[in-house]
Amino acid sequence: MPRIPSDELAQRRERLREHAPDGYVLFEPDAIRYFTDFWFLSNERPIAYVEPADGDAFVFVPEFEVERTRSEAAFPRIESYPEYPGVEHPMLVLGRLLGSIDRIAADSDGYPGILGYSGPPLSAVTGADVRPLAGQIDAFMRVKSAAEVELIRESGRWCAYAHRLLQDYTCVGVSEGEVSLRVAHEATQAMLRLGEFGQLGSADGVKAGYRGQIGTRSSWAHAIAHGIVFEPGDLLVSETGAPVWGYNAELERGMVIGEPDDRVKWMFEHVVAAQQVAFDALQPGVTCADVDRAVMRYFEENDLMPYWRQHTGHGIGLRNHEAPFLDVGDSTVVEPGMVFTVEPGVYDAELGGLRHSDTVVVTDGGIEVLTEYPRDLESLTLPL
Amino acid sequence: MPRIPSDELAQRRERLREHAPDGYVLFEPDAIRYFTDFWFLSNERPIAYVEPADGDAFVFVPEFEVERTRSEAAFPRIESYPEYPGVEHPMLVLGRLLGSIDRIAADSDGYPGILGYSGPPLSAVTGADVRPLAGQIDAFMRVKSAAEVELIRESGRWCAYAHRLLQDYTCVGVSEGEVSLRVAHEATQAMLRLGEFGQLGSADGVKAGYRGQIGTRSSWAHAIAHGIVFEPGDLLVSETGAPVWGYNAELERGMVIGEPDDRVKWMFEHVVAAQQVAFDALQPGVTCADVDRAVMRYFEENDLMPYWRQHTGHGIGLRNHEAPFLDVGDSTVVEPGMVFTVEPGVYDAELGGLRHSDTVVVTDGGIEVLTEYPRDLESLTLPL
Repeated sequence: MPRIPSDELAQRRERLREHAPDGYVLFEPDAIRYFTDFWFLSNERPIAYVEPADGDAFVFVPEFEVERTRSEAAFPRIESYPEYPGVEHPMLVLGRLLGSIDRIAADSDGYPGILGYSGPPLSAVTGADVRPLAGQIDAFMRVKSAAEVELIRESGRWCAYAHRLLQDYTCVGVSEGEVSLRVAHEATQAMLRLGEFGQLGSADGVKAGYRGQIGTRSSWAHAIAHGIVFEPGDLLVSETGAPVWGYNAELERGMVIGEPDDRVKWMFEHVVAAQQVAFDALQPGVTCADVDRAVMRYFEENDLMPYWRQHTGHGIGLRNHEAPFLDVGDSTVVEPGMVFTVEPGVYDAELGGLRHSDTVVVTDGGIEVLTEYPRDLESLTLPL
Repeated sequence: MPRIPSDELAQRRERLREHAPDGYVLFEPDAIRYFTDFWFLSNERPIAYVEPADGDAFVFVPEFEVERTRSEAAFPRIESYPEYPGVEHPMLVLGRLLGSIDRIAADSDGYPGILGYSGPPLSAVTGADVRPLAGQIDAFMRVKSAAEVELIRESGRWCAYAHRLLQDYTCVGVSEGEVSLRVAHEATQAMLRLGEFGQLGSADGVKAGYRGQIGTRSSWAHAIAHGIVFEPGDLLVSETGAPVWGYNAELERGMVIGEPDDRVKWMFEHVVAAQQVAFDALQPGVTCADVDRAVMRYFEENDLMPYWRQHTGHGIGLRNHEAPFLDVGDSTVVEPGMVFTVEPGVYDAELGGLRHSDTVVVTDGGIEVLTEYPRDLESLTLPL
């Protein structure tokens, strides 16, 4: 499986450093992963990555992570504290390591309140003026490098593989849980046979299922699972995910069990057409709002507004959802390298709903789809 | 499966209201679940529960959640906004619903930055003085009711079931991934056959595995998975989890593949004895620090400090880890109804590590173990 090269990670840190001449501290697990590709179990014990104004950069971990960090990561300097909360709070240890400083930058002013953590802010333990970096980091993360796109593409391939299994195993009389567990089992095992792809738990990997979006519940843009048993005529909205070294694609399909009637065909055609409107509108230089407005215009022109429930899509990468959003309220200008889901849906409370979600990267001239999978009704009609 | 009764939820809200006479807003997904047992997919679209000073309490959701909320929850009043970020930001809609107020309480001053969310604080959109409630909510959540203990006990039963399968399937030549996926598949399916237990995704349920804590890597108190293949003589530290309507027990065991040598026996005996020291020390009226100090005294008296890596345990409930911590730095006084993991471990970088984690509830006179599973070496020696 591909992975972010270490020189690209170094470039990311150098670029961040340009925005933080007085040095910086990263506390957010996603930010640490983005700038260092360090894999760890995040909990109430603070972990931080620090580039001080002077001196060597270091990672700051609980004592029991020192040996593992030395063995599994490439930090030249590792600092630690005995335990959280401990006799001396870890933030006090960190403050001591940083010494007397006037200014520093950080993604947040202290470790976030993960799993019961509490403690003093970085500004309190250092006396420094802490300049926020979160907006800058978010701006970096919005535009993906070629290596990041390759990881998302690989994730998209595994989503497609899992979706094929999901489609094959979904049939009248079985439950969403049975199908979902079977796909997760088989698809994750297949990934593991081909190499490492970034796990914390032994069974982390592919997810595929319906999250309750079955029958009339598919008219709820987000539902939750209830161990529902599939019935003839059900409309379905699937979901799949398969992180590759933390990077995610999203692939979802509207499907129907058994021969679709005219009303389902009508709905399905509009789902495909509305997604195509978004594909055509998404290109460098337009705003995210422009894309969503184009889709809403399609809904309006086709008298579909009673069936509209959600915006066109969202950014995706290290997080399953991230800014910017393909939404009438987001004026972000689209740039090459941004990765979005494109997923307008059509929902009818009586009939059910349908939605296709594909993950696309913005190129110089338009977009490229990273989740290759059939979108047509024939391919997405499941046999009775 | 048991579930929190609705009158208990109402009592929790009444009690919170006593601390918030000017009304309150809950934004944190865990807090909303704790006070209302509302199940939803948490993302960048804000969801809030509001009890205003005057007028009816309401839940605040994106428009596409309205139908589902009406169908699956019991809120007498549902308010909504079209979409996030939307033409009008959801926080502005919420501010309008709250009207002109001088004071209100909230678990945080606005919706947390989940999955790319950003927006103005509650204080800004209402002009109100927002009194923090997080500490109060945390104090409530630390002491579990009989109904909560019953859910954790049920979780503990499923952890034990999964651990039995994990033990049966773990053998030389197979990988942690294979075993873990097989157990998750079978044990979650068994849970689903017996009824609902609170899922978001179709395959959510039991987790069981090793998270890389295999062979010498078991000397790392927290490791991460690498698809490791089991070998003769491996020391293992397992982990299991099985949320029941959101409530968690934790069951972990130190194990060995094949006949243990004297050094492993020595380590194993100390693991069992140190856990017993904690069991004996944990009772109402002592502090969390007292319990951890008793365990550290055991380590010191037995020349085990070189093998010490982590504190005795942590609170557990709706979150996998939560305050208070059985740690020398936590002076919280132990009360009946508090639920803790008790899990001192012994770790040797050359040999590997061993740890048993059990979940216990503090009773009037001591503790009761909620994760019944063998702790002796014979039961935890896997055949070659």
